[in-house]
Amino acid sequence: MAPVAKKQNTKFNKEDTRQCFGAQIFDEEHVKSLRKSIKESQPYRWGHFHHLFDDTLLRNVRKEVEKEIHFTLKETDIYKVFQSGDLANLSGLDWDDLSRLPSVFKLREALYSQEFRDLVSEVTQCGKLSGVKTDMSINTYTKGCHLLTHDDVIGSRRVSFILYLPDPDKHWKEHYGGALRLFPALVPNVPECDYSHKFIPQFNEMAFFKVQPGLSFHDVEEVRVDKQRLSIQGWYHIPQRGEDGFIEGEQEETEAKSTLQQLESKELQEYDFPKEVRLPFSSYEIKSYTDGNPLDAFDLEFLSKYMNPELLTSDKLVSLQKKFVEENLLQIDDLLNHDYAKHLHKLIRSHELDSVMPKRREEVSFPWKMAVPPHKWRFMYMDGKQPEEWTVEGVKLANNGVQESPNFQLTNQMAKDETTRELTQLSSFMKSKSFKKWLRIITDLIPISDQIIVRRFRPGHDFILATSVDTSDSKQDALLEGTLNLTPSKHWESGEFGGYELCMATNDDDEEGDDPAIYKSSADGDDSVLVNTQACWNKFTLMVRDPSVLKFVKYVSYNAPGSRWDISAQWDIDMNE
Amino acid sequence: MAPVAKKQNTKFNKEDTRQCFGAQIFDEEHVKSLRKSIKESQPYRWGHFHHLFDDTLLRNVRKEVEKEIHFTLKETDIYKVFQSGDLANLSGLDWDDLSRLPSVFKLREALYSQEFRDLVSEVTQCGKLSGVKTDMSINTYTKGCHLLTHDDVIGSRRVSFILYLPDPDKHWKEHYGGALRLFPALVPNVPECDYSHKFIPQFNEMAFFKVQPGLSFHDVEEVRVDKQRLSIQGWYHIPQRGEDGFIEGEQEETEAKSTLQQLESKELQEYDFPKEVRLPFSSYEIKSYTDGNPLDAFDLEFLSKYMNPELLTSDKLVSLQKKFVEENLLQIDDLLNHDYAKHLHKLIRSHELDSVMPKRREEVSFPWKMAVPPHKWRFMYMDGKQPEEWTVEGVKLANNGVQESPNFQLTNQMAKDETTRELTQLSSFMKSKSFKKWLRIITDLIPISDQIIVRRFRPGHDFILATSVDTSDSKQDALLEGTLNLTPSKHWESGEFGGYELCMATNDDDEEGDDPAIYKSSADGDDSVLVNTQACWNKFTLMVRDPSVLKFVKYVSYNAPGSRWDISAQWDIDMNE
Repeated sequence: MAPVAKKQNTKFNKEDTRQCFGAQIFDEEHVKSLRKSIKESQPYRWGHFHHLFDDTLLRNVRKEVEKEIHFTLKETDIYKVFQSGDLANLSGLDWDDLSRLPSVFKLREALYSQEFRDLVSEVTQCGKLSGVKTDMSINTYTKGCHLLTHDDVIGSRRVSFILYLPDPDKHWKEHYGGALRLFPALVPNVPECDYSHKFIPQFNEMAFFKVQPGLSFHDVEEVRVDKQRLSIQGWYHIPQRGEDGFIEGEQEETEAKSTLQQLESKELQEYDFPKEVRLPFSSYEIKSYTDGNPLDAFDLEFLSKYMNPELLTSDKLVSLQKKFVEENLLQIDDLLNHDYAKHLHKLIRSHELDSVMPKRREEVSFPWKMAVPPHKWRFMYMDGKQPEEWTVEGVKLANNGVQESPNFQLTNQMAKDETTRELTQLSSFMKSKSFKKWLRIITDLIPISDQIIVRRFRPGHDFILATSVDTSDSKQDALLEGTLNLTPSKHWESGEFGGYELCMATNDDDEEGDDPAIYKSSADGDDSVLVNTQACWNKFTLMVRDPSVLKFVKYVSYNAPGSRWDISAQWDIDMNE
Repeated sequence: MAPVAKKQNTKFNKEDTRQCFGAQIFDEEHVKSLRKSIKESQPYRWGHFHHLFDDTLLRNVRKEVEKEIHFTLKETDIYKVFQSGDLANLSGLDWDDLSRLPSVFKLREALYSQEFRDLVSEVTQCGKLSGVKTDMSINTYTKGCHLLTHDDVIGSRRVSFILYLPDPDKHWKEHYGGALRLFPALVPNVPECDYSHKFIPQFNEMAFFKVQPGLSFHDVEEVRVDKQRLSIQGWYHIPQRGEDGFIEGEQEETEAKSTLQQLESKELQEYDFPKEVRLPFSSYEIKSYTDGNPLDAFDLEFLSKYMNPELLTSDKLVSLQKKFVEENLLQIDDLLNHDYAKHLHKLIRSHELDSVMPKRREEVSFPWKMAVPPHKWRFMYMDGKQPEEWTVEGVKLANNGVQESPNFQLTNQMAKDETTRELTQLSSFMKSKSFKKWLRIITDLIPISDQIIVRRFRPGHDFILATSVDTSDSKQDALLEGTLNLTPSKHWESGEFGGYELCMATNDDDEEGDDPAIYKSSADGDDSVLVNTQACWNKFTLMVRDPSVLKFVKYVSYNAPGSRWDISAQWDIDMNE
């Protein structure tokens, strides 16, 4: 993104400008019909120009970009994209010196010309737009690149646009991916799980929409094939001081509103599913493993049904505890015993190969649920609780009405396939006294509440953006967190397909967990990454986590070898003995 | 029960004694076959004598009893029976002066004669029996009388017997009830829910069994018709000092063993279902109603779906709170609103009229379960949790393995009939934030954990013996307890059919909750009864209960107009604000 450009809109007269554009763009009929279609558009005001620019001009732009601009792959929790510029030049190319890029310069002049801004203003009915505050970037999406759901709301942005420049001589097919997808909102700041409209990019087409805080949610679908989807993306801002349409205080008000919206969005946690709610154990239960009892015969037999017996020997317990107490982290390979692991591996792998993978929220059937909203996360999960209704009324009820606790045994009995049944059994096992006792021994911490969630991250759909944990209601300012990785497919090691779970440290306590910028800067200096666990089979990662640690699960690529499967657990802890 | 009798076994010689008995009793073949049948008997060593006494003698005994002995109806949590004697003479008739009862005197001499004791000893293979420590009582069971499951173990008892004296000229039919029923034990001290053998009483028959701590569980089936089932019941004790077979210290050892057994039985709480486990709420949830917030629009709408709107007005809330704070007790009529109550009434009443009532444990199908063991309670219930397997292994697993929480919404989805579904919905409602907020307001207490149980007490089967609550793991030495009475049938007011829930005060803190003697003495002085709520429709009783309060639900008579239905709730409370 570029800073405000310096005086550059002086060279072209009206005629010059018009000649940059396609023949029909300024036609009265075209404008009228576009205005009408935008007014009636769903899920919010958006539209597109077909054949927007003069073909030659845009082909030249493309050539210049290909020849002169260096792209660097950038990846955070929210995107993976080739950005113009390199690591040494974070702002991308130098928009103040476009001397080597005359066509790009001309294009920008046209985009921010009075004529075109008036046109955009007219068809979107969004008020005047600034000609001096230009704001553009050039990106390339290649195979695996994506940008997850967000509403584009920052500061004074008024209209968002994407001008597409894939190969001008080829048709961009839908199955290539890379589409712009628009998400309706259930209520402001809460996008629906699935997009309702999508725009498939073609050369010389521009999609645009009115930036509306809490409403204009969209994403860029992952590019699925070995094609380049080049685009120039930018915003029109509200008029600046001295410009036509400038209103004293409007920018401040818009910016304040955008900040307010973000704050309100935090209050909208009631729309988050699954909720971060750890359920306290009864004191009767906690007592049974606080007295420092070793694993007894029952425990050993019970644990051995699922667990690797090597993890239950006295020596191993001592060495695990020593390591955990030193490092606050354990990565245990082969948590499950050989026979059970083999059985479960076969079940999960067959399930993902033989059953139709649910795509949209409505296709997910209980006991599986869909994590929402998608500007925070999307994945399939089981929490052992009854289904919630995804309506305003249903969410209200889930938050304020009936409060019921998870029960994986009941869930088990309602599961329709063996894989789901086995996963609920395993979750139930993790709620057993014996397992808690084992945990208590190897961590030297007393678990006093828990939340267990079975998760499936589907290729081409799922992820969790960076978040921190909420310990405001915990006795300790940290909790115990475990992930049992149960991904049966192979070839995840490179991280190319995403699906890894990454923890990183933040330097401040601002709790800006949802801001991808934090990770972006963190990723630049690699030492802030604490743990990065690739999707894998039968590995249990256990750590003490405090609110300064951000964690995310990277979006799983459409081309991944399968889903990432895991069981995620959190325990509040007590240290009093 | 009589104290040790004074020197009375001197008058009769061996021949006199033999003449008191039926012709075949002492025959070698009879003895041999009886001994064999007892050795092979199930569920524990027991047998019976047919035509035990000389017919004339026993008819005379019956006449004397009918003429001379006054019976008084006694009722506690564990029995309802006409005992000989009256209120002024608690020990029944005067066994030291049987001058007006020569046949009874003769009968006792015969029962405790050397010859007969040797016979009993021989057939039961239980060792020598005392002739000086006699221990008998005369009881009449009429319609509605019963004695619930117990193992008869007190002190030095070695053999238990019941000599039946119903009308000698009529056959006692099975459907009259009044049978002796024997219960197998799953493990020592834990009787099975249902009897496995029963003995239908006839005139001049005697049933007897070896008293075995933790094993010899039996009951007297309720007499179902307008007939008198007169009986003489008693015990043979171990030989006393000076008697043949006396062993120094044996009595003390036997008594100690019996005490030990009772203590061990307390440790066997793992076999109790449902367990008294109140599950803590998450701190997030408690927060939502600790700030003294009034009921908001959502709450009012939500509560009104089920509740009587009159109970939600500000004035009513204030008056309810005032009354509760003063009395620690509220009895609220019409908790449920008119329409919902009507709907539910119809459902429950049709259910009990139209569906086959499950009798034995195996007939009860999930989500309903059977409360066990029956020397503590028996009733059908739903706790919102998965089924437990009633085997030693299953109980171990339920106690030490998987720990899952109730979820009535999931249970609801697995219910097979509409009545069950509606009752789980109502339970779920009682777990709602809004209902807890209402509770918090009317009690001025903060509920911090709960247990909700739907119960059905079936005619001819169900009861809860007097117990106290366990607050050892609570913050306060008291808890909040509520019963929503949902019995749709009428005519319970007299208490004749049982099914009432009675609370009484104990004077000491000895926690002798399971000892029916406490209630017996309490009932004599009526002022120790705190509350007695008859089975009724749509009444909510709410009280603060501490461990000094005993509570029981009286056995529901076979002839009751229907089942007692209710929802029972307990909440741990916090008073810190």
